[in-house]
Amino acid sequence: MQTKNIAIIGSGLVGSLLALYLRKREYTVTVFDRRPDIRTIEFSGRSINLAMSVRGWKTLDKIGIGDEVRKLAIPMNKRTMHVTGEPIYHQYYGKDGEAISSIPRGILNKKMITLAEEAGAVFRFNEKVWDINLPEAKIYTGETERGEWKEYKYDMIFGCDGAFSRVRHKMQRRSRFNYSQKFLDTGYKELGIPANTDGTHKLDKNSLHIWPRGKFMLIALPNLDGSFTCTLFMPHEGDSSFEKLTNDEAVMQFWKQYFPDTIAIMPTLLEDFKSNPTSALVTMKCYPWTYWDKVALVGDSAHAIVPFYGQGMNAGFEDISILDEIIENEGDKNWEEIFEMYQKSRKPNADAIAELSYRNFIEMSSKTADPEFILRKRIEKQFSQKYPDKWLPLYSRVTFSRRPYSEALNIGDQQAAIMDKVMKLDDIENIWDTEQVEHYILGLLEDKKVIQ
Amino acid sequence: MQTKNIAIIGSGLVGSLLALYLRKREYTVTVFDRRPDIRTIEFSGRSINLAMSVRGWKTLDKIGIGDEVRKLAIPMNKRTMHVTGEPIYHQYYGKDGEAISSIPRGILNKKMITLAEEAGAVFRFNEKVWDINLPEAKIYTGETERGEWKEYKYDMIFGCDGAFSRVRHKMQRRSRFNYSQKFLDTGYKELGIPANTDGTHKLDKNSLHIWPRGKFMLIALPNLDGSFTCTLFMPHEGDSSFEKLTNDEAVMQFWKQYFPDTIAIMPTLLEDFKSNPTSALVTMKCYPWTYWDKVALVGDSAHAIVPFYGQGMNAGFEDISILDEIIENEGDKNWEEIFEMYQKSRKPNADAIAELSYRNFIEMSSKTADPEFILRKRIEKQFSQKYPDKWLPLYSRVTFSRRPYSEALNIGDQQAAIMDKVMKLDDIENIWDTEQVEHYILGLLEDKKVIQ
Repeated sequence: MQTKNIAIIGSGLVGSLLALYLRKREYTVTVFDRRPDIRTIEFSGRSINLAMSVRGWKTLDKIGIGDEVRKLAIPMNKRTMHVTGEPIYHQYYGKDGEAISSIPRGILNKKMITLAEEAGAVFRFNEKVWDINLPEAKIYTGETERGEWKEYKYDMIFGCDGAFSRVRHKMQRRSRFNYSQKFLDTGYKELGIPANTDGTHKLDKNSLHIWPRGKFMLIALPNLDGSFTCTLFMPHEGDSSFEKLTNDEAVMQFWKQYFPDTIAIMPTLLEDFKSNPTSALVTMKCYPWTYWDKVALVGDSAHAIVPFYGQGMNAGFEDISILDEIIENEGDKNWEEIFEMYQKSRKPNADAIAELSYRNFIEMSSKTADPEFILRKRIEKQFSQKYPDKWLPLYSRVTFSRRPYSEALNIGDQQAAIMDKVMKLDDIENIWDTEQVEHYILGLLEDKKVIQ
Repeated sequence: MQTKNIAIIGSGLVGSLLALYLRKREYTVTVFDRRPDIRTIEFSGRSINLAMSVRGWKTLDKIGIGDEVRKLAIPMNKRTMHVTGEPIYHQYYGKDGEAISSIPRGILNKKMITLAEEAGAVFRFNEKVWDINLPEAKIYTGETERGEWKEYKYDMIFGCDGAFSRVRHKMQRRSRFNYSQKFLDTGYKELGIPANTDGTHKLDKNSLHIWPRGKFMLIALPNLDGSFTCTLFMPHEGDSSFEKLTNDEAVMQFWKQYFPDTIAIMPTLLEDFKSNPTSALVTMKCYPWTYWDKVALVGDSAHAIVPFYGQGMNAGFEDISILDEIIENEGDKNWEEIFEMYQKSRKPNADAIAELSYRNFIEMSSKTADPEFILRKRIEKQFSQKYPDKWLPLYSRVTFSRRPYSEALNIGDQQAAIMDKVMKLDDIENIWDTEQVEHYILGLLEDKKVIQ
């Protein structure tokens, strides 16, 4: 094995976890970040709590830090729905015991940086990378873009610098680099529900809470300290939009109309609303992800997605798992081949989870409150429990399995076509749990040759 | 009317024609270009001859330079098909007299710069724009990106700097700017057919010549001096690709196999093949196209398309027509409103011609040689001649009308659906010119309520 001198650009979740993985292979690793060390500062007030699921956990477990991170997480085994004019109710995510885990981004990121540092990675915070020489794997840093620059030369560079990656930005200026960035009309704002004075949670703590309101929604994810991190997703413009909520009266009036049950538990609503920024949501795709044997993009820099499937971090961590498996299987001799296998393996899956995440906004914000949707999920669930080898629900395949995202998208579409037919059966509301429906589904599965 | 001090970035076809239009409104106009004055240098050897059609001509005529430009152009009223193993045959583009016009890019560009200069526009060649301050309409130029810069302040900036626009590049770094660049697997190379010694053309000069070969094709467009500008379109990689043609023997063997009839008329084939670069083809989309009342993208910088409909320049010129009409109708007071109307009007049409251009590669390279396709076009043409108010063929709507591109795409799809049905009629090869088929089409038009 040859020792390599590797630079990672970006000390976020993916950058710091990749540093840890590369240190385990005894490479020399330096991580650059233009921002200060987040362990020394307040976090930004623009994050959505993370929902770690199987792909993320497997990547952490493989390198032996899963249990340490579990201490920071709260399992959520269900959605708790707060539908206007209806009692609160639950939608369980998976089978008994299956849950996703809520972790605040800042807390996890701090932990990961410390772990990578302990493993021997060197972090250079407050050092801004302005330019990259791709074929020579050189990076240029400095205080300002137009000022003095320092040059560093490495054997390889990994771009883990997120949706607005400088490394990718440099690759994008090359011919034959495919690239797209597409913003949603919906933006988001972080808000909060504090803990009770005794440190307990004000709502069921093992739930992802949703207040679905059609074109907008509020969600809340639990934190260990008894608080919840809330996120309001809403259009930037139009009726019920961020542009309409420009003063305290407008916010309070809106809140009384749509989220009256939360007013008592959100005492800092107006303050949070003013001080936290309204952020944009982007889907970013590109290809290729690598340059020769010199540069590779990992995580959001290669495939930024919208947060509605809770898979952004999980997909980024899975990139690392897969890259590590390839190095394991192929040996670390031919990095051009390793990078080629990595990007070919991950690209279709990144595209698939981008599509699934985009679609899930509609499911979360409007369909979760729709009686037909609820019945549909109930039928699927019952069938899946009886025939687990014939029907793994889409959500479970994405969240509780490591099957490729592209397979999830494909089989999910076939299942959806079957359920469309089932829901059109006469009197389905009353016959849904009969053998007739069960046999109908079995027949359709047979016809379509859906292979699980 | 207020005088405005306007900068145009890019002295290409769109930049220089926009300069002329803005000078006619008595604005002060400075055109920056990073390249030298093309009137003083050899042209690049990487261009595809332009095919000027109605949208382009109308924009030139409106400002009174159409006739001058017509002197540089050769009308092409047909495709001439060179299909392997078949006699040469013609496909006429439109009705009697309808033609597109072949003009070499360099010759037209030189003319336009001279006309704009005569009208009072100032051209600053060899001056590289490196950065733009969008809200303040400032531009920064200098020898190198990292060297000394000069600052200029304008009232407005127009980005006419093509598919790889710096102005757009700056806009792209803003939040909520949608952007995509997608490269074809097919690239192109410029080649040539010289004139006969007496200055006449070696092939029919009023034709766009096509050698369709499925995944690749050769085309030739006439020049006034008796020569033809040829373009080979071919995949970058794979069987029959640029990567396979790396030496003289490979090129000659390929040429003998696929284009044997052209060898005698292309004496500089090997030289051209080596000295001219292989270029990439990109479709670029973005939105918004404007920034406040300060900056607007026009032409390829806003919507670069592949060349297979011959509409790239025509679409860029139509941008100028439409912008000018809006200024005419609205007055030149509120530029934020003018820019908003401009981008809203043009964006759907730019997307439509991007789609149509992409599709046309398949039509040109393979379908034009397909007997079923030829019959289909014949049926369409006959019907269209009999019922001109019921059926304007897609190609004619794009090329010989000024109806919106988005309408062309939409009605074209409806016509295609009708023709799909017609082609499935029993024995269509023999009954195609019967009343039965005619009535069948009339009935389908009635059913679908296709409005021309």
